[in-house]
Amino acid sequence: MIKSNISQGDPMKVMQTNGQTGHVDFVGAGPGDPELLTLKALTAFQRADVVLHDRLISAEVLQLAGRNARLVDVGKAGFEHSWKQEDIDALLVEYALEGQRVVRLKSGDATLFGRLDEEIDALDAAGIPWSIVPGITAASAAVAGIGQSLTQRGRNSSVRFLTGHDMKGFADHDWTALARAGSVAAIYMGKKSARFIQGRLIMHGADRATPVTVIENASRPDQRILATTLDQLPVDLAAAGFDGPALTFYGLAPRDAAGTATEFNKELA
Amino acid sequence: MIKSNISQGDPMKVMQTNGQTGHVDFVGAGPGDPELLTLKALTAFQRADVVLHDRLISAEVLQLAGRNARLVDVGKAGFEHSWKQEDIDALLVEYALEGQRVVRLKSGDATLFGRLDEEIDALDAAGIPWSIVPGITAASAAVAGIGQSLTQRGRNSSVRFLTGHDMKGFADHDWTALARAGSVAAIYMGKKSARFIQGRLIMHGADRATPVTVIENASRPDQRILATTLDQLPVDLAAAGFDGPALTFYGLAPRDAAGTATEFNKELA
Repeated sequence: MIKSNISQGDPMKVMQTNGQTGHVDFVGAGPGDPELLTLKALTAFQRADVVLHDRLISAEVLQLAGRNARLVDVGKAGFEHSWKQEDIDALLVEYALEGQRVVRLKSGDATLFGRLDEEIDALDAAGIPWSIVPGITAASAAVAGIGQSLTQRGRNSSVRFLTGHDMKGFADHDWTALARAGSVAAIYMGKKSARFIQGRLIMHGADRATPVTVIENASRPDQRILATTLDQLPVDLAAAGFDGPALTFYGLAPRDAAGTATEFNKELA
Repeated sequence: MIKSNISQGDPMKVMQTNGQTGHVDFVGAGPGDPELLTLKALTAFQRADVVLHDRLISAEVLQLAGRNARLVDVGKAGFEHSWKQEDIDALLVEYALEGQRVVRLKSGDATLFGRLDEEIDALDAAGIPWSIVPGITAASAAVAGIGQSLTQRGRNSSVRFLTGHDMKGFADHDWTALARAGSVAAIYMGKKSARFIQGRLIMHGADRATPVTVIENASRPDQRILATTLDQLPVDLAAAGFDGPALTFYGLAPRDAAGTATEFNKELA
């Protein structure tokens, strides 16, 4: 079956108190540099009445919201507030039913590790229309920051996007495939499980000298790059003391380190 | 080793005829909708003296170039011109050595299936500075267009980006991992190898009923969506007669088809 477009939600079902149609845009905010917003994201963001945003959205991005927009931090980690997913869902529905133009702003691209579906289910159940505005995911900005490609002829013709939180559920053939020479993976939220990932990969035959690069705060002014190996990853990561969001590339070294290793190391001395 | 940034190229090595420093920005143009350019991409594009672009860049995107920019189509497929990679490399170097601000515009994100590295090697050899501006890759726009996520808790905690051109080199454990229930992959340029991919996946145990969605011209006004199954993929794809760039999702159905299948099929009748 083919259709030219997919209708999302059904505006006819929506009963607003003010007679206007509410709408939710799920907007990918990119990795932090406000210049990495898309034009479409900026437009949606600037005309929003309400913006529900994650904790990791940078202040520079939030400053681009329309002057009258109400900003609500629904970050799930924190000491004072701890938002449950169902509370976020309910708030989205509530604002939309009031006829507000709502932007749900998520770090990077909302469709990658964004827990988007639970929020869309809530909107669908309430008959509220929505759309998704793609964003630059952290891996894309991070790989640009080290001058590399996610794929490269003769090295890797595919790349995987993983989250460190879920790799404990991996099957043996997943580890085997990942451990093979030339594999490249972008691991989101991989800091805490670095030692576990290292152990499994080596157990499945990965070369201890495989390059691993960790990029903290990709695209932001305080971006930091740790270039190491699978063997040294846990030790070097602990020494680096990264406390911002970090993206781990398994199988990729920064381009300069690969091409002109001597000069690169000299700069660091 | 940690450093705050990676130096890219060495401006001191560059000898320009006009005394200015040439520079090349590798810019991801996104999948076609000009609104999916990033602000950074637009800035680079509008201040460029010369833009070398691929064949697939949409006319709507090219219209955003600065008024005095020289646009050069270096698309590698075509009847009249057939640019070789080394000719593109040489032209990039030539313009940069003249002191021009060069934009190398690539579809989607330059770091995914973009053959970026060969061009960077040429610039590095000539000592020309460069940078990479991330773009929205086709998979990101396509998945937004079907209202789905690339990853979802309880379904798939990782996603693969592949190219149909290179899947003939896959090892058995790659096929096994891909064939497992719940796998999701975004296959670029997968139309021609659809039957081969189908055969290998079924041979490795994939369920014939696994959803497969092909999105042609993602994000463009003429976007078309084919929702099918692994079993029916080659037949339905041939019947659809897609001739634009297409992205194939293995393991994903459009959201409406999954959630409200009856209504969705009614719309198509």
